[in-house]
Amino acid sequence: MTSTELLYEGKAKKVFATSDPDVVIVEFKDDATAFNGEKKGQIAQKGVANAAITTRLMNFLASHGIPTHFHKQLDERRLAVARLQMVPLEVVVRNRVAGSLEKRMGVAEGTVLEAPVVELYFKNDALGDPLLNEDHIRAMGIASEELVAQLKKQALEVNRLLQGFFDDRQLILVDFKLEFGMQGGQLLLGDEISPDTCRLWDKKTLRKMDKDRFRRDLGGVEDAYREVLERVLS
Amino acid sequence: MTSTELLYEGKAKKVFATSDPDVVIVEFKDDATAFNGEKKGQIAQKGVANAAITTRLMNFLASHGIPTHFHKQLDERRLAVARLQMVPLEVVVRNRVAGSLEKRMGVAEGTVLEAPVVELYFKNDALGDPLLNEDHIRAMGIASEELVAQLKKQALEVNRLLQGFFDDRQLILVDFKLEFGMQGGQLLLGDEISPDTCRLWDKKTLRKMDKDRFRRDLGGVEDAYREVLERVLS
Repeated sequence: MTSTELLYEGKAKKVFATSDPDVVIVEFKDDATAFNGEKKGQIAQKGVANAAITTRLMNFLASHGIPTHFHKQLDERRLAVARLQMVPLEVVVRNRVAGSLEKRMGVAEGTVLEAPVVELYFKNDALGDPLLNEDHIRAMGIASEELVAQLKKQALEVNRLLQGFFDDRQLILVDFKLEFGMQGGQLLLGDEISPDTCRLWDKKTLRKMDKDRFRRDLGGVEDAYREVLERVLS
Repeated sequence: MTSTELLYEGKAKKVFATSDPDVVIVEFKDDATAFNGEKKGQIAQKGVANAAITTRLMNFLASHGIPTHFHKQLDERRLAVARLQMVPLEVVVRNRVAGSLEKRMGVAEGTVLEAPVVELYFKNDALGDPLLNEDHIRAMGIASEELVAQLKKQALEVNRLLQGFFDDRQLILVDFKLEFGMQGGQLLLGDEISPDTCRLWDKKTLRKMDKDRFRRDLGGVEDAYREVLERVLS
């Protein structure tokens, strides 16, 4: 499959058109950003790790009934995926308090949530990806009530599956972000699932194994991505 | 009715205990703050205007079936009200885009919302009163699902009544904030309803007649409060 036109370059990925109008190629970069692009850097081999981790997790989810955009891995940095009409929401699922939730709830990092918390953010860099409630989403015409319910239900099912997957690999899935899109009237899970989009902590030591090492200058960033890759492939 | 112990001093009001454990006295101050207390000032006679406006509006709402904390006006700055166990949420209803909603939706001030938008904020100065969704409220144990539904329903009914009330007085109710509390197992509307807590625009000129004149240094603050008072009492 040959890449043609560059359709979009994001902070961590490039998306190319292909000869098939329903398929695009996603190329994973080593570029890393945080705090809405204010912090920039590179994480060596991150693109390679995230492409492989995403491949494994999308295959795992698909085998458990979650419709995803994933077609196949083309090489170490490139995946062929379904071209989606993206829903402009970031769907975040949280099992423990971390990141922005600490300040929103006034609760310490690591606090276990009795039930998962789902958050919907407007995917809009210029506005800083603000949190939305369902009235906002309706007023903005982003998604119907039915679609919002479907997104939340699907995200919780992905959470249930991934929690088990990571737990088997001695990792705690603290929280993660999903993006969805439509193709041919069907809602598909899109984007990536990786230490860029998940908070993953070692089950025994609670060591952070994700992009927080980059965000918070904790060191050992490349090692963490490599370690997650090894555990995910095991 | 005699004030006894000062129970609480807020940014715009003082609350005193009385000899009746179920009744407190609220005293309206001229102090004004904005941007979570970062901007401070005084608005001459604001307390007098807000006490009278709140009295008129609470009476109006009660006469239309909304249970409120209001008992009676004691003098020009003081109201006797039911002592409530407050729900720590600010319930905001919006009919047009203004304030924080401009940046959240990326839509211009004044845009009419097809249906009202309800927002729930955690009433917590230290955290900057963050927006919450219903999962946050559940996780924080702030209110049951039933109570949240009741708050939203009651706020929308208040909106319907106040929109008509203000429209008759040539004012557009752009948005407003309510607070609720419990007494004896009953949910009562609490706090105040005034140009401190409502955005009110003149229907013809769209002139701002509320605290935005103070927030945004538009001048004519006292005049605006006096004008709203006159229209509300008419």
